[in-house]
Amino acid sequence: MKPVAVDAMGGDQAPGEIVAGARRAAEEHGVPVLLVGRPDAIAAAGGGDLEVLACDEVIDMHDDPGASVRRKKDASVVRAAEAVRDGTASAMISAGNTGAAMASALLRMGRIRGVHRPAIATPIPVPGSIPTVLLDAGANVECHPSWLVQFAQMGCVYARSRYGLDEPRVGLLSVGEEASKGNPLVKEAHALLEDPAWRKASGGTFVGNVEGRDVMSADVDVVVTDGFTGNVVLKTLEGGMRFVERALLEVMTATDELRAAFEVMWPALMPLVNELDPDTYGGAMLLGVNGVCIISHGSSSATAVVNALAVAQEMVEADLVGSLVKAVSP
Amino acid sequence: MKPVAVDAMGGDQAPGEIVAGARRAAEEHGVPVLLVGRPDAIAAAGGGDLEVLACDEVIDMHDDPGASVRRKKDASVVRAAEAVRDGTASAMISAGNTGAAMASALLRMGRIRGVHRPAIATPIPVPGSIPTVLLDAGANVECHPSWLVQFAQMGCVYARSRYGLDEPRVGLLSVGEEASKGNPLVKEAHALLEDPAWRKASGGTFVGNVEGRDVMSADVDVVVTDGFTGNVVLKTLEGGMRFVERALLEVMTATDELRAAFEVMWPALMPLVNELDPDTYGGAMLLGVNGVCIISHGSSSATAVVNALAVAQEMVEADLVGSLVKAVSP
Repeated sequence: MKPVAVDAMGGDQAPGEIVAGARRAAEEHGVPVLLVGRPDAIAAAGGGDLEVLACDEVIDMHDDPGASVRRKKDASVVRAAEAVRDGTASAMISAGNTGAAMASALLRMGRIRGVHRPAIATPIPVPGSIPTVLLDAGANVECHPSWLVQFAQMGCVYARSRYGLDEPRVGLLSVGEEASKGNPLVKEAHALLEDPAWRKASGGTFVGNVEGRDVMSADVDVVVTDGFTGNVVLKTLEGGMRFVERALLEVMTATDELRAAFEVMWPALMPLVNELDPDTYGGAMLLGVNGVCIISHGSSSATAVVNALAVAQEMVEADLVGSLVKAVSP
Repeated sequence: MKPVAVDAMGGDQAPGEIVAGARRAAEEHGVPVLLVGRPDAIAAAGGGDLEVLACDEVIDMHDDPGASVRRKKDASVVRAAEAVRDGTASAMISAGNTGAAMASALLRMGRIRGVHRPAIATPIPVPGSIPTVLLDAGANVECHPSWLVQFAQMGCVYARSRYGLDEPRVGLLSVGEEASKGNPLVKEAHALLEDPAWRKASGGTFVGNVEGRDVMSADVDVVVTDGFTGNVVLKTLEGGMRFVERALLEVMTATDELRAAFEVMWPALMPLVNELDPDTYGGAMLLGVNGVCIISHGSSSATAVVNALAVAQEMVEADLVGSLVKAVSP
């Protein structure tokens, strides 16, 4: 397998945590990696003898995605996408500016033939069960009904490749279970999803509308929505979980007696805390471009990078892109 | 104060929990109540000597809201709204079919002059701080930008009446902080909210776009969004919190050792669990109709009813409707 191109300069904790994660993935898990960025910064961050694709520019969190990708042709995230296009790398990951990662992947790799719009698919943790795949989690703030149908197809392919589900259950996010509930986008998409034609090579089952409370449940495998709603849902859950975690921790360590009880509990709680941590899931997948592209959380730690690289390797080996091509081909 | 009309027949646990809550509110907190529903059912549920407005019909959770309100003129929720319109009651609460409660309030009480569309305002718990008021939480799945501006005004009036905030901070829910982020609705509403004219009598401050992660934070007092997104956010948080609570409880009681530690912790955790329980907040307020109308969660317990009645009394005494009239008058 060709190495996975890692945008070493992207992320709140880049290059330190990114490079550290790439090293761990390479040394402990045997994932081939190609670090993309400034050689001096990568060396200073402990890149060691990992392969480096040298480039000089960086797109930061506040740069305008479209404009910066067009202007900064030597930016690490752009070069990472080019490496996939050119066949030097088998996949790319970036924890930097999400818009710039999407634009780089789209402009350099191109979209799969027949894809209306690429979508961001994010696994939502469901304690005790496999995660729910939420898409679109932010690539397209405005959508046409037919795009949502294609998101459903791509989500099914991803859920099958990643979680081994034979026939993923797809729900359409709305404000009530009845087909009559929702805005015009949802109502039209609902009608289209009821037509079994959309299943084609993707092979999922449409279970109807689902509500916000179903996102974090084991009742559905893929939740389809527009990128505005999906992004709000994702961040609402992330914020809510973090807030509750902090509040719990504060309560549980407020007195000596509570701290003693907390110490007994911590080893048992740890797996649940990990399960709810976005770093565990290896980031979001941009589905619909001509290559595996993982967009990790801006706050990604080395552990998040290790997990993202494991997912990238797995999706390359499972030929996710080939399956997507087959599912959406016109 | 005139009594608060309670739809005794509405809710998953009606009339039992509803009547029990009304009794507790009347006997323990001195809230005057008027139970609306079938006298025999109310008596069987232990209504005792509470005042009853007899009616014969019930709108259940699966009835079509508009049609049932038009057809079932003797339904408890319709009669409750009429009691407010006729001055027999000072406010109404219902834990039944949300759409029917909205339609009853709108058709019987009418909307306040100048209000484009009533909106559902729901307090979102923020542990250790006052709740964030989210609106619209589901009344209008499609909105015009100017409606969102009025939601901001009404939300400010509500946050001031209920939580005593002098100058509530209003955030517009979007997918990024920059004014350029969001769908067309949000971008237009953002521009309108930047014009200080909207503040008028409502007196809030527009703090710009906020993201999903800010909903459950102390950084903003009122979060404005369309009813589709708001409903999804509300249910996502409710579902997520319930799921995590269950997962935590399972972990914390898995062995004898953990159960012992849990028993030490429970009294300290209890207030946080209560803070996160929707029953604590007394339900959602339908803002923009000519009367105080509280729409409680379908699963409302007696405690939820007690809290809803306390909020109803408080909002009547604070003349919430008078303040709304002043804020939105053309």
